[in-house]
Parts: sequence; structure tokens; C-alpha cells
Amino acid sequence: MKDINLTLLTDFYELTMANGYINSGIGEKTGYFDAFFRNIPDHGGYAIMGGLDHIIDYLSNLKFTDEDIEFLRSKGIFSEKFLEYLKNFKFECDVWSVPEGTPIFPREPVITVRGPMIQAQFVETALLMMFNHESLIATKASRIVRAAQGRAVMEFGSRRAHGAAAAMYGARAAYIGGCAGTACAIVDRETGIPALGTMAHSWVQLFPTEYEAFKAYAENYPENCILLVDTFDVLKSGVPNAIRIFREMKPKKMGIRIDSGDIAYLTKQARKMLDDAGFPQATITASNALDEYLIRDIILEGARIDSFGVGERLITAKSDPVFGGVYKLSAIEDENGVTPKIKISENVGKITNPGVKSVYRIYANDSGKAQGDLITLKEEGIPVGTKNSDGTETIEIFDEESPWKRKEITDYTIKDIRVKIFEHGKLVYDRPSVKEVQKYCQDQLETLWEETLRFENPQTYYVDLSQKLFDLKHNMIDGYRKR
Amino acid sequence: MKDINLTLLTDFYELTMANGYINSGIGEKTGYFDAFFRNIPDHGGYAIMGGLDHIIDYLSNLKFTDEDIEFLRSKGIFSEKFLEYLKNFKFECDVWSVPEGTPIFPREPVITVRGPMIQAQFVETALLMMFNHESLIATKASRIVRAAQGRAVMEFGSRRAHGAAAAMYGARAAYIGGCAGTACAIVDRETGIPALGTMAHSWVQLFPTEYEAFKAYAENYPENCILLVDTFDVLKSGVPNAIRIFREMKPKKMGIRIDSGDIAYLTKQARKMLDDAGFPQATITASNALDEYLIRDIILEGARIDSFGVGERLITAKSDPVFGGVYKLSAIEDENGVTPKIKISENVGKITNPGVKSVYRIYANDSGKAQGDLITLKEEGIPVGTKNSDGTETIEIFDEESPWKRKEITDYTIKDIRVKIFEHGKLVYDRPSVKEVQKYCQDQLETLWEETLRFENPQTYYVDLSQKLFDLKHNMIDGYRKR
Repeated sequence: MKDINLTLLTDFYELTMANGYINSGIGEKTGYFDAFFRNIPDHGGYAIMGGLDHIIDYLSNLKFTDEDIEFLRSKGIFSEKFLEYLKNFKFECDVWSVPEGTPIFPREPVITVRGPMIQAQFVETALLMMFNHESLIATKASRIVRAAQGRAVMEFGSRRAHGAAAAMYGARAAYIGGCAGTACAIVDRETGIPALGTMAHSWVQLFPTEYEAFKAYAENYPENCILLVDTFDVLKSGVPNAIRIFREMKPKKMGIRIDSGDIAYLTKQARKMLDDAGFPQATITASNALDEYLIRDIILEGARIDSFGVGERLITAKSDPVFGGVYKLSAIEDENGVTPKIKISENVGKITNPGVKSVYRIYANDSGKAQGDLITLKEEGIPVGTKNSDGTETIEIFDEESPWKRKEITDYTIKDIRVKIFEHGKLVYDRPSVKEVQKYCQDQLETLWEETLRFENPQTYYVDLSQKLFDLKHNMIDGYRKR
Repeated sequence: MKDINLTLLTDFYELTMANGYINSGIGEKTGYFDAFFRNIPDHGGYAIMGGLDHIIDYLSNLKFTDEDIEFLRSKGIFSEKFLEYLKNFKFECDVWSVPEGTPIFPREPVITVRGPMIQAQFVETALLMMFNHESLIATKASRIVRAAQGRAVMEFGSRRAHGAAAAMYGARAAYIGGCAGTACAIVDRETGIPALGTMAHSWVQLFPTEYEAFKAYAENYPENCILLVDTFDVLKSGVPNAIRIFREMKPKKMGIRIDSGDIAYLTKQARKMLDDAGFPQATITASNALDEYLIRDIILEGARIDSFGVGERLITAKSDPVFGGVYKLSAIEDENGVTPKIKISENVGKITNPGVKSVYRIYANDSGKAQGDLITLKEEGIPVGTKNSDGTETIEIFDEESPWKRKEITDYTIKDIRVKIFEHGKLVYDRPSVKEVQKYCQDQLETLWEETLRFENPQTYYVDLSQKLFDLKHNMIDGYRKR
């Protein structure tokens, strides 16, 4: 998808720091930064990785224009050496990331950027914005789609989106999370995600009567005639007029949409009227400030709905619209080797994991289900369990905050969940299509237990540290305490 | 500000309807559409109009590219006549709007678009998106700025924004609502809104010690040295190191920023330490998931803060991230004159106001305060009160939902709050700078009573209908009931 040149879409402090790095001669020192998040929105059990494709576009197109450099010069605080550096800026970092559509969990480094401090630091703002926004919407969409229990969910929220990028990248993220399509036409043109839509109330208001409005629509769209039946009165006017049109005009596909009122009651009544009239094939779409909670409830009440249009509460992730991803320095590397770095906090959950790390997901071979994730120091290599007499292996993982709680997993498969995206600034990742990402996401969700997937009070998925990483972290914390 | 070509950022149904209008020969019929909203976010007493400048850009740049038309043709449902129309599309509508920065209230038509149905309908999605998003953020910012009681509030939220447009247009809207600036560099380049920022925790982590990190920063920025003091321990390490730097390096402007922990406690302690060290001029900035409620509370607790950095809860309007503006057909005009249109709903609050309307604000001449807004039929002209013996006039307004509640206003000034923006597609509005809009907003807020401005349980501002509009609306409702 298209976006404007976002190079200067950055917090001003990225620029003051970058200038400082250059002037203090430390810009070329190698830094490692981890992007991770701390809490799953809506107290859910999992989040869905989003934003990577957008981040790839962003990193591939970093370029300071003459206009950018003039603007910075006018601030009077940046050195000419720094401005010269920006003029010749070329992205040279290594980037590892979890692929889009992967279920992700708090505290694990989902993206790592390694490169000259000045570069690896600079990309923080835009990278986080894309990761946060698109993971937020993919996660919300996944919840809503699961609540719909197999019924199609369409993303309908452009008019309530927080600007054009929210509408477009939000619709794409919603599709990754399982939506069947979007109302937003430009998203279809750019990505092939199907855009659908039929009529607004204004179409119905424009004609002298609702019947005439429906008739004109059916004449225009005999192949796919979905009629909006709630402009005046759903059951007394809208559905009877729709039935009359289906009889007279015999559209190939037919259906109604209800956008207001008591959806459970109205859809049950409308279903009966359509069936009684001989149109069991006519579909019913509901749309009206829906989210996963309302969808669950109206299905429980027996609403008769074939598909949902979900607008404002999906595109803004209304119930919890902040995905709190952060980007923290975890190590620096120079001629003396790698030095792990930590950010201390009074809140233990906010202390960062130091060092250069890997993230593994451990699957039980019998069920195929993911049993937990393990964050290790990269230097440890792939974790190895202890051999059992039957040839299987057993691996022990433990909870960082309660290290006495230990869990043994026997007969497992272990997988590094991150892939290399950029190598020295060159894209080395074969970007999947958004359809492939959607399918991948669906497949990955099937590796999670139902207890983790449910959207209220889910079981916490294990994200554990290797003993070596745990020891490094706690030695560093102790070191700071003793100072 | 720059945006991509948003012509196809539209709900697909705008296109199916537009195609239907052309094919059914009603595309050139003149329609009137009103944009309005129904509820103020956060149960507030007022909202701030936003998005107009963006809407002007959008409407000025509407253009279907060959690529757009090819995409639409590939859908197989649009007529060649329609595609030919799009190829030669030229925006020809009249547009009236409340200026940006104006306090606005539920149910009043803040924007009206008059023009060929096909055009006036088509712009719905993008126009609403811009109005909704930017009014949402301007309103939220105004609440936060008022809570800060004169202390500067900086917009710091890009990394949590819902994409690039949310970050950029959000920062602009936040400035209109009263923020002093933004962290987002591109917004400064594009609008002149000042961007500020100093250092992240990673700057401090990068150096062997916090002291060395601060020293390097002060060397780079001797004019304006704001040090982030919470990387390790605010009171034991950060503030003492900052004081040492202020003593040794004597920066021209100096200050500290605290981004975590108990802000009220830490700022009180830090203030005392800075004062005791002889630096009463050193400023204190606080930033950490703040909003109007937290800011109010920490000020009540005696926090010593000179300025706030407000991020995620402002840029996403976290507590209520949907501004529910809608766009409804209110009249059509043809050779027989103007025919008012209405959308009926089971919920009386969702029934639209029919007809071609004006919106007036009535100010009491003694206090200068706004007493209420009056929506009239445009044909009525400026409302006229009854003359009193002392030469003043008295006007009576009444609440639509409780028409027996009547209020008399004596000695008033009445003002049409909307201005013409486009005339037959030509921009006829002199766009103010964003600085002028900010000042205008501040001045306008001074015309509201404190009871309306407070951010919890405010007094409801009167938005009343003229007797003629009330009668028209209720006659139309009765007409539909009798059918």
C-alpha cells in the first residue's frame, strides 16, 4: 500500500540523539534494539503480530530529502556533520522479526534491529507506530471473528478511523485477523482484499418510496441485491418491500442488511418472514456498533445472521485502543564484543531483558499445540532437552516471576519464531501476500489451546526465560542495586 | 500537510450508489447532506470542530486516476457511462462549515454539502473520517490542556498513533485543542507547530554511566538541556546526576523529565532537590500514560510540574476513541423546488432534522457568554426576537425533546456559526493558519460557561430547533406513522 515519505515521521528526540551520537563519535557503535509489548489488549490471551509489511516499506524507503535537511538546519541545533550524514543516509541494519499473523505474547522480542546506533535508534518511532497500530487491529479482529463463530465479518470502519492510514492499514490488519473483506475501496485496489458494499439510507431516502428505491437498486444490481431495510421500519416496511422485490425482480443473490434497532429480535423475525415467503437463500447482514461482546451475546440470543459488518469498534479497537509496544536498547557491540544493556524500573515487569536474544516456541508432538515460548540468549543456540529412555526429549521451562514454578514438556518440537528480514539493510525476506498471511494466522491460532484463545479470563500463555538469560538479568539488576 | 490521493478512500457503497444514480438518471438531482454528531466523547460538555482544513484538501484534490477507473472496471458491475463520468469528475458542490476550533454540540449540522447527488453522496466516507478523527483529538486535547491549568502540554503520541495520518493530523488537532507543540518532527516541517524532544532511555543506557550520558548531552545541547532522570533511580541517581551537570556545565536552559514511577511524589522531591541545589529555574516535565483525569489528580496532590508530555491517551483518545459523526441526506432539490428528507428511527434521538438549515449561536450581551444554539430552516432568515421597551430584544428558545421547557434570552447578539467554504466546487474560504485556529479556539472557549467546560457532569448546552423546523420534523414523522 502507498504511504507518504515517512522518514521525518519521528519523535524529535530521535534526531537530537542522532545528532549527539554523530558529534560524540558513537553513532557507528553497533546497537541492538528489541521491540516488544507488555500487556495484551482487552485482557486477552494472545495478540496477533501486525505491521511488518508496512515496516519493510518504511525501512526500504528511508530517505532524507533536501527539504527535510533544510528544515532541520533551520532549527539551529544540528551540526553540519550530522546533516551531511543524513544527506547520504542509507539503511544498513539487520532486522529479525516474527512474521505477520503470528500469535505473540508479552515480553518476547518480536522485532530486533541491529546496526549503527544512529540508525537502529532512529527508526524507533515509525517502527513502533506500525507494529502497535496493526497488531492492535489484527488482534481485535481476531477476537471479533472468533466471536462470530464462522459467520463472515466485514470491516466497515473507514469513516470512524483515525485518518487514512488507520483506515487502510487497519483494514489490512483486520483481514489478517480473519475478516472476510472491507468496505474500503482503496484497500481492494491496493491489496486485493475484497471490498463490498451496497447502499446507505440516503439511497432509500432519495426515492419517493422505499419500494421504488429497492426496485431501482435491483435493476442496477440484479446479480447481488442486498437491501438496507431499516430506513423507516424494518418489519413493517423494509422486509416486506424486500420480499416484494425478490419476488418481482428475482435477483441472483439476495439479502437484507439491518443497521439499527434490536438486532437479535429483528433478525429472528426477518428470517421467519423471508423463509415464509420462500426465500431461505436470502442472507441477513447486521451492522450497528458491534464488537466481540455484542456479537457473542446476540448469537447466544438466537439472532439469525449470516454476516456482520463491524465498524467503529474494530477500526479504533474501541475497548482498548492502545497497543503498548516499546523499543529498548538490549546490547551494544564494539571492538570488545557485546555488552548487554538493561533498563531498570521500580516495577519489575518494566525491567527489560538484556542481551542478544532468540525466541523459541515449543510444540507438543501429540497435540500439535504450543506449550510455551522460551526466550534465550542467542549464544546458547537451540535449547536442548534431556533424553528419555523412549527416545523423546524433555525440556524444563520456568516462570520468570515465580522461578519455583517449573513445567516439563516431553516429546516436543521447538521452533525459532523469528526470521531475518534485512541483512545489512538489504531485504532478504520473501514477503507473503496478505491472503497468505491471513491463512498463516488462522493455522497458527489452531496451535493454541482453547483456554488461551477465549476472550475473557484466558489462561496465561507461558513466556519463559532460559536459565542463562535469567541469571544475566538478575546479576545486572543486583549490580545496579549495589552501586 | 501531505496525504496520498484519497479519492478511492471511500466505502464501496458510495460507488455502487453513484453508479446507480448515473444509470437511473438521478445523479444530477441536487442533494443536501448534513454532517453532525450525536454524543460528546467522555460525556463532556463540548466538542471542538476539527478536520476542516484536511477536508478542504481532500475536496480540492478529488480525482479518479486511470488506475482507479481500471480497478473499478475490473469489478464488472459498473457501467461505462459511470466510469466515463468519473474520468471527467470535477467537484461542483457548495459546502458550508463551522470553522475549525469552534465549540460544537450534538445534532447541529456542522457541515452541509449541496450539489449533484452523485458528488454530495460520494464524499461521505472521507469527509466523515477527517471530521470525526480530528474533532475527536482536538476535543480530547482541549480537556487535557484545561486539566493542566496553564502548564504546557506537549503531544507525544506518534508511536501509539493509529498510523501516519493519525500521528500527523492528530498532532495538528491536538495543537488546535491547546497543546503547545508535538514530538513529531514531520508535523513541524509541514505546519510550523513546534516539535520538541531531547533523549530516550537508550541515550542514558548507551554510556557507561548516567553521569557520562548527561554530560555528553549537555555538551551537545548547552542551550537547552533537559535530562531524562528515570533510567535507573530518579531520586538516588537521576536528579543528583542532573544537578551535578547543571553545576559543571551551566546550560542556558535546564530541566529534567520523569517518565515513570509516582509522578506526584517524585516531582515534589525532585523540585526540592533542584531548589536546594540552587536551580529554581530548572523545569520539570512529566510524561507517563497521562490524561485529563491523572493530570487533575496529580496537580491536586501538589505535584510540581512545569509541563506535561501526553502520549497514547491523547493521540488515541483512549477513554472514548470514537467520534460518532454521521452524514445524512436532509433535502433534495429539483425543478419543483426543495423537498425535505428525514431518516426515521425507533430511537427519537436518531431521527434526523429535515430540510435546508442554518445554525445560530446566541450570546448574552452582558456576559459575552453563549446561551445556546438555534437550528432553523434557512428560509426563515436570521431569527428575530420581540422588542422590549428598553430597546433590547428577547428571543425564546425551547428544547426539542421537552418543548414545554422554554428559555427567554434578553439583550443578545446572534451569529450564524457556519461559513461558506466551497461555491460550486470553488474554494471561497480564506484558510487560517493553525496558529490562528488555536487562538480562535481559545477565544471561543471563553464564550462558554464554566459549567459547560468542566470535564465531568457538565451542564448540557442548549441546542434548540426553531418552531418551523420543529413543526416540519414532527409533521414528517406523523406522516410516516400514518402510512
